[in-house]
Amino acid sequence: MGGDHGPGVTLSGVSLVLAHRSDVNFLLVGDEAVLQPLVDADAKLGASCQILHADVQVSMDAKPSQALRSGRRHSGMWKAVEALKSGEADVTVSAGNTGALMAMSKVLLKMMPGIERPAIAAIWPTLRDRSVILDVGATIGADADQLVDFAVMGEAMSRSLFGIARPTVGLLNVGVEEIKGNGQVKEAGAVLRDSVLPIEYAGFIEGDDIGQGKVDVVVTEGFSGNIALKTAEGTAKQIGSYLRTTMNRNIFCKLGYLLAKSGFDALRKKMDPRTMNGGVFLGLNGIVVKSHGGTDAVGFAHALDLGIDMAQAGMISRIARDIDRAHQQRENSEIPLAAAGGG
Amino acid sequence: MGGDHGPGVTLSGVSLVLAHRSDVNFLLVGDEAVLQPLVDADAKLGASCQILHADVQVSMDAKPSQALRSGRRHSGMWKAVEALKSGEADVTVSAGNTGALMAMSKVLLKMMPGIERPAIAAIWPTLRDRSVILDVGATIGADADQLVDFAVMGEAMSRSLFGIARPTVGLLNVGVEEIKGNGQVKEAGAVLRDSVLPIEYAGFIEGDDIGQGKVDVVVTEGFSGNIALKTAEGTAKQIGSYLRTTMNRNIFCKLGYLLAKSGFDALRKKMDPRTMNGGVFLGLNGIVVKSHGGTDAVGFAHALDLGIDMAQAGMISRIARDIDRAHQQRENSEIPLAAAGGG
Repeated sequence: MGGDHGPGVTLSGVSLVLAHRSDVNFLLVGDEAVLQPLVDADAKLGASCQILHADVQVSMDAKPSQALRSGRRHSGMWKAVEALKSGEADVTVSAGNTGALMAMSKVLLKMMPGIERPAIAAIWPTLRDRSVILDVGATIGADADQLVDFAVMGEAMSRSLFGIARPTVGLLNVGVEEIKGNGQVKEAGAVLRDSVLPIEYAGFIEGDDIGQGKVDVVVTEGFSGNIALKTAEGTAKQIGSYLRTTMNRNIFCKLGYLLAKSGFDALRKKMDPRTMNGGVFLGLNGIVVKSHGGTDAVGFAHALDLGIDMAQAGMISRIARDIDRAHQQRENSEIPLAAAGGG
Repeated sequence: MGGDHGPGVTLSGVSLVLAHRSDVNFLLVGDEAVLQPLVDADAKLGASCQILHADVQVSMDAKPSQALRSGRRHSGMWKAVEALKSGEADVTVSAGNTGALMAMSKVLLKMMPGIERPAIAAIWPTLRDRSVILDVGATIGADADQLVDFAVMGEAMSRSLFGIARPTVGLLNVGVEEIKGNGQVKEAGAVLRDSVLPIEYAGFIEGDDIGQGKVDVVVTEGFSGNIALKTAEGTAKQIGSYLRTTMNRNIFCKLGYLLAKSGFDALRKKMDPRTMNGGVFLGLNGIVVKSHGGTDAVGFAHALDLGIDMAQAGMISRIARDIDRAHQQRENSEIPLAAAGGG
């Protein structure tokens, strides 16, 4: 347990969650010798946390195949996902190695019936509010059928997490016209447009539409989704750096900054990447949330809250029901998938 | 001639260029009845501009195939590219329909020997300075060989345009480890890493590295490149909107803004998308620059300057030489492309 900064950070994150949620219990998986004193030192932690000892920690740079091989059953990550599988836990949150976490989740939880490939969904702050974007890196080169499944799962996540009755779904593309894009996107667009799926499909969207909040759910394959997410993060950092230089430019700018400090504080809060921390593994029989490894207690608490919200909303059973219905409807539809160019 | 706003804007752009460059002559292609009075009204324009009459204007929403069919030889766009082909012009700049401009450029100018597919290169402002990114939308799903050609062309553009002796080249990917990414990126990475090409290959980069200026040339296929570019534009717009809201938040913020106005003006100038206007078509026997259709005179002037700079640097012959050498070296190399996984 711990991510880049060790269990001190994650336990502080747990404390932050317990400060506003009293109905949650935590199973801390890691080295008991390290965790027990930390828990004992805090009455609130003591009352809500159980410790599950694990000898081994998966290293941050281990390849997924390595993590799966050597002594995997003794690692904290394996035991944490196992607790989710057995029903002991309702959600697993980890700040560890993403590839290893995904590999163990697939082995232990298995894919949902009918889902071929997992997706990682992220929350994207927009001018309207927040959107769900998937996949941001689990399935490189998803095909049309997989993109359609991502649309169904992302829509269910948006409903569960944000309580939006009819979330709009857009396919990320290089243009909004039907002829634009690669084969997979065009095929998935045709299926979503023509199909009987109960999805509010809004058509193709472009990269600059994401931050405007044009749709509630942005669907894309993992390569371009990962690049979109990281490019947006990089651009935000870049502009933040420009802004700091600007406000230190001369004495007037420095004074102006002090005067407007309440505004800048609000802006910093709004752009705080910690408030969007947490990648959600979708398509598995269980909710696994990957926290950024380098985040702090506030960021880790956000990932925990995200996982708890989804568990309390019964997201997995919603997704399973929606996927099942979507596959049945596509099979029964008068417009078979093959005719729409899928495959 | 004219883009979204008509020839008034483009002619004002020409005037802006003539204000700091006296050694350039312009061939204005469009409706003589409209252009002649505008040119006659300005002595400087009159001295440096010739008009080439065209009856037809390619509409902004025409499909490339349509633009190539109906009366294409009478359109201003066709005639402008034809002037480049004949040597009458050294560079063609258009604010018109991108797809039609690319289609006509391919038909008239032809691809350079050995180049299969064109790329559109854009200039990306970074914390270090500026980078070249290609392809941002011409070749959806470029294969490994095409990505390697893009690397060679982008590197030559960076040397020609920015005078960088040894530009660094990175391949955009979802991680920096060799095992990351799709097949095309992995293959292209293997070729660039192992090959004898005189390119300063810096390995894989991620989306957030672009704005930090980690490399001088960012290579990617058109789908993800277009999404990266537009996502960055959208994020910049989004943060600009947050910033405006922030500075209007209360009287202190408003006063702070007024005090720091010199800084905000500098920031606005730094983030002005007009200063990065102009997509460069690469891989053709001639320099074609696509200006944003909706830009103003300042933005169009930047696209003109970009084209003139590349023409004066002899960029096309540099690219042709580099591509020729690169292909010969790859053929003669002890590590044949096939062994590196290319094809």
